[in-house]
This record gives sequence, structure tokens and C-alpha cells, in this order.
Amino acid sequence: MGAADSLTDAKSAEATVGERSASAPNALNALAAYLKDDMEACNREIVARMQSPVPLIPQLGAHLVAAGGKRLRPLLTLAAAHLCGYAAGPDRQRHIGLAACVEFIHTATLLHDDVVDESTLRRGLASANAVFGNKASVLVGDFLFARAFQLMTADGSLRVMEILSSASATIAEGEVLQMATQNDLSTPIEKYLEVIHGKTAALFAAACRVGAVVAARPDAEEQALEDFGTNLGMAFQLVDDALDYAADQQVLGKTVGDDMREGKITLPVLAAYQAADEEGRAFWQRVIEEGEQTDADLPHALDLIAKTDSINITLARAKRYAEDAVAALSVFPDTPVRKLLIDTAFYTVNRVH
Amino acid sequence: MGAADSLTDAKSAEATVGERSASAPNALNALAAYLKDDMEACNREIVARMQSPVPLIPQLGAHLVAAGGKRLRPLLTLAAAHLCGYAAGPDRQRHIGLAACVEFIHTATLLHDDVVDESTLRRGLASANAVFGNKASVLVGDFLFARAFQLMTADGSLRVMEILSSASATIAEGEVLQMATQNDLSTPIEKYLEVIHGKTAALFAAACRVGAVVAARPDAEEQALEDFGTNLGMAFQLVDDALDYAADQQVLGKTVGDDMREGKITLPVLAAYQAADEEGRAFWQRVIEEGEQTDADLPHALDLIAKTDSINITLARAKRYAEDAVAALSVFPDTPVRKLLIDTAFYTVNRVH
Repeated sequence: MGAADSLTDAKSAEATVGERSASAPNALNALAAYLKDDMEACNREIVARMQSPVPLIPQLGAHLVAAGGKRLRPLLTLAAAHLCGYAAGPDRQRHIGLAACVEFIHTATLLHDDVVDESTLRRGLASANAVFGNKASVLVGDFLFARAFQLMTADGSLRVMEILSSASATIAEGEVLQMATQNDLSTPIEKYLEVIHGKTAALFAAACRVGAVVAARPDAEEQALEDFGTNLGMAFQLVDDALDYAADQQVLGKTVGDDMREGKITLPVLAAYQAADEEGRAFWQRVIEEGEQTDADLPHALDLIAKTDSINITLARAKRYAEDAVAALSVFPDTPVRKLLIDTAFYTVNRVH
Repeated sequence: MGAADSLTDAKSAEATVGERSASAPNALNALAAYLKDDMEACNREIVARMQSPVPLIPQLGAHLVAAGGKRLRPLLTLAAAHLCGYAAGPDRQRHIGLAACVEFIHTATLLHDDVVDESTLRRGLASANAVFGNKASVLVGDFLFARAFQLMTADGSLRVMEILSSASATIAEGEVLQMATQNDLSTPIEKYLEVIHGKTAALFAAACRVGAVVAARPDAEEQALEDFGTNLGMAFQLVDDALDYAADQQVLGKTVGDDMREGKITLPVLAAYQAADEEGRAFWQRVIEEGEQTDADLPHALDLIAKTDSINITLARAKRYAEDAVAALSVFPDTPVRKLLIDTAFYTVNRVH
């Protein structure tokens, strides 16, 4: 399937959030099912490598594993390796260990994010910092990050280390930039895009690129997978930011309006603010810039966002990134895993959580 | 100078803290002066590699650089390289970049420690978290850690990466273990030693070992430098823990009694608790285990520590580690840099801050 064909599949991305649930089959589950053996091996690796003589580390690790999560990033590493013809075999296990590294880096950033954001929920369950405290979350995050680099060292590829250490630095830069834009409604949309590129798309890109590296594929394919991952990550984060003002809390597994309460600058807010009348601007300034919020503010915010069509503006942008992600895969032969990655890209913009 | 000769120099370590200031020439300054050119190159590297398009990162970096600090760990990497005959030259700059990596890892852990400990002072100045907030400290710590691995990747030695990623994991384990022993007076001394090995000695050891790796020296020399660093780190931390109950705040650059206020389990407290009478034990249980403290408790704690000779017990143990550190250097030829490292080991147990 070429990129052009698949674009027609993406029409559902134009549906409103309320309609999206039914129309989107869970392509992520299909991809996970296709890579079931590798994913199970990766999960075993994750549990095994979280071990430590210090009991609190595997205890907190078990909490994170139990909390589940989509394991989207390691899945991308496994899928990218398969796309590049690197199928698992007795002497072809590198993608599994590196997928675990990617998940460790991601988990470390989640642990630190929840501390930084003072979150109490993660995927519908109590967040690690709420259960184990901020100190444990900071330190176990550091441990997982260090462990990821130990695993990379054991793998032995300087190229992989270059990709994942650069991505790690970019994530931190994105998070710091996000902090700097907090409460600032004058943030240009370009800067918001830079934030989500750093905090989300960089690791998606690295996770995918690593798959091409283990398969020893040419630069063009590495670059294609990097482009796929970058665009997929941008789409994913845009939808995440839309869902924070749109989704049902039970489905989302996090509190709707979290971003607003934190004064986080995301596209739904920027679009609503920029299109607002004087009264609307005053409202956003009070709740986002001054952080003065009451219980009545969230419904009013959702109303202003609906009136300015800001969710659909955000989702339309996500859809364009998903289309670019799909287009990047055109250099690869038409295989089942490529089809599943294309479906995943469109699923990303149709998902409800 | 052999290890046996130098042991006589260490007699001053038996002096009480009050007497120690005058008797200890600052060997660390002498070592820094000997390695001045390399150290300046390393400082330039540190400033250059803290740059980022996100302004808050170099801003916080400048605060850390301005706060100074001994730069003991990178100095050890440079000294170890010199000890192994790896002198700087146009194509011999690896020790400088790796010394900067070591300092980045150390700085990242300091930033996270200050968040975890809720410290407001670091080296006598406002700590980064007090000035820039906890969020920035967590995230810039992550950035520095990632940047360290980027620099190692550029250096290209898997061996170095193995040493420094393992040390980083061990540091995090030590910090988590320290958290788990907090407020617990039943902590065995062995567990306390495990904590300080993790949080301090592991990076001293790695910093030294890396010097042998860049010089491509045989395993025995790598091991000797690892032993030197481990023992030096243990001595250093023991003295640090003694100073927290002994030093003049202005000289120390941190608040005396910080460890007590945090309920931190260190050797001065364990020794005083184990030697205390019933009333003394009840006191320690209230202030350390229950965390119920008044302004009058610090003088009383210092009094109990003095009565049980707990500072000298701690310093005597530090001195034995310093002697073991010196003994480990016996495999190296008698050079000026070896003499300076020996002096540094004894200075560590004689220092007043």
C-alpha cells in the first residue's frame, strides 16, 4: 500500500472526537499481536533488567510494569527492525534489548515528568510519585536511565548510543522549554511544536531509527524511519493534547483538564486563545497566565475550545503529521509490518486514549 | 615515596577537627596547580558542552559553574591519565573530554540530590533548586546526564561507557538505599558503608579508572586506580559526614546539622547511638527516627557525639580508607603526580570543608 492510498483511510481523522472511538480499529493491538513473541521477550528483558540489590528499585519497577501502558516506543523499535528485514533468531536478539532500552529511557522521563508536574494519576492508576514519593521517582528514574546506557554498552553499537543519547538530551531540552513556556499565552505555535518535538517526537524517531541500525540498513532507510517516527510522535502528542480537553476521564486514564490546571501551553489552548474575543482572552489570561482557577472554569474552557473549533484544528494538524509519517514509509517494500505501521499512524490520530 | 613512608604523614588525621585546619596544606590545590592547563581545558569543555538552544540550560549551568566547587572528580581523571603516562598533546585530549563527562554526571546527581534533600544551600551559595526551582533542577540534571553520554559516544570507547554507565547505576542505587535507611537507627554500619560506596565512592573509582583506559594501560593498573578511587571516595564521604556534625558553617559552606534535620543515617550518628545510654538512645530515636526536633537538639546532639568520640571514630575509619587508597598506588612509578595523589588522599582526611 502506498502513502497515497492510505491517505483515504485517514478521512476518519476528520470526524469529531465523540465519533472517533467506533471508527478506529485498534491498530496498535494488531501491531502488538503481530510482534507478540518479540514483545514478550522485550517485557521479560524489562523485568529482568529492573532487578537490583536495592529492593525499592524492583518494587517501583513492578508498580510501573503493573500499570501497563502501551509500550508503544519499544514496539516501534521491534517493528522497525522487522520492516528492515531483521527478524528475531537465536543470534538476532539485539532489537529486543534495545527496545527495552528505549522503554527504560521513556519510563525514566515519565517518572521525572510526574514529579515535575506533581501528577497523581498515570494511566488511570496512582502515579509512582504518589505511591513511593518524589524522591524515589527521581532516583529510580536516574537508575533506569543509567541502566539503559549499560544495556546499550552491552549491545556495543556506538551508532545506537549516539542516537539514543542525543534523543535523551533533546527530550530534556524539550521538557525545559515546555517549563519555560508554561503560563505564557504569547508562546508562538512554532515554539509549542518545538516542545512536543523534544518531549515526544525525538524518542519516537530514535526508537524507529534504531531498528534500521541493528538491521545494518543504508542511511536512506535510517532517515526514512527517523522521519516516520518524528511525524508519528508529533501526531501522537497533538492528539494527547487534544484529548486533555476532550476525552472522557475514565477512558483517558488521566484527569481531563490537567494541562489547564498546570497552565500548560498546548495547541487547543493557543488556538482557542488566538481566536477568542476580548472576554475569551481575559478568561484564558486569568486561568492560564495567572493560574486563578475555579471549578466552573473547566466547563467554560471546554465551551470556548468547542466554539473556536480548537480540538479539530489540533486533530487536523495531527492528521497531517500522520500522513507525513505514512509517506516516509514509501521507501520500504509492501509487507504486513509496513501495513501495520501505516494503520498505527492513522490509529494514532483516531485513538480515544 | 612508597605507601609506607606516606603513612607517617597521615598522623595529623588523628588530630581533632578543631586542630586539623592548620596542619593540612591544601594538597588538592597543589594537584590542581600541577594539572592547571588540563583543568582549564576541562573547564572550557564543561562550559562549551552545557550550551543548548534552550536558554535556561546554560543559565542554570552558569550558576553551577559560578558556584565553583572543587572539581575533584574530573581532577582525578586528569591525574590518573597523567599517572598512566597519558600527557596532553594535540592528539591526546581524550582525558579532558572524559573528565568533563565525569563532572557532568556528578553535577546531575548533585542537582537531583538537592531536590531530593530539599536543600537550599550548596557550597555556601543558594542551591540551583532554590534559585531555579525543583523542576528545572530535575530536568537540567537529566540533560547533563544525557550530554555526558553524548560526549562519551563521541569519545568512542565502549570500555569507558561501560565504566561510567555502571557507576551511574550504582550511584542511583546508593541514593535509593540511602533513602531506604533514612530515619532508621537500626541500619547496620555495613549498610551505611554500602550507601556511601554507591553515592560517592563508585564515581571516584570510575573517574580514576577512566584515566587508565585512555592511556591503554593493563588491567592491573586499571584495577589499582579503581581501588585508589574507591578508597578515596569512602574516606571523602566519611569526612563529609563527620564535618556535618563538626564544622563551622561558614567554612563548610553548608548548614551544620543538615544530616540530622533530614534524619540521615551517617556514621557519627550510628556510633553515638550505639554507644549511648538509655537517655541518649531515646534522644536519637526522637530526633532521627521520629523527626521531632527543636532548636536545642543540635547542641545536645553535638554534645552526645563528642562524649562518644563519634567524630574521631568516623575520622579514624576515613584515615584507614585513605591509607588503603595510598597503598593501591604502589604499582605506579614514583612521579610528581603520584606524590600529589598521595597528598590528596591524606588531605581528604585532614580537610575542614
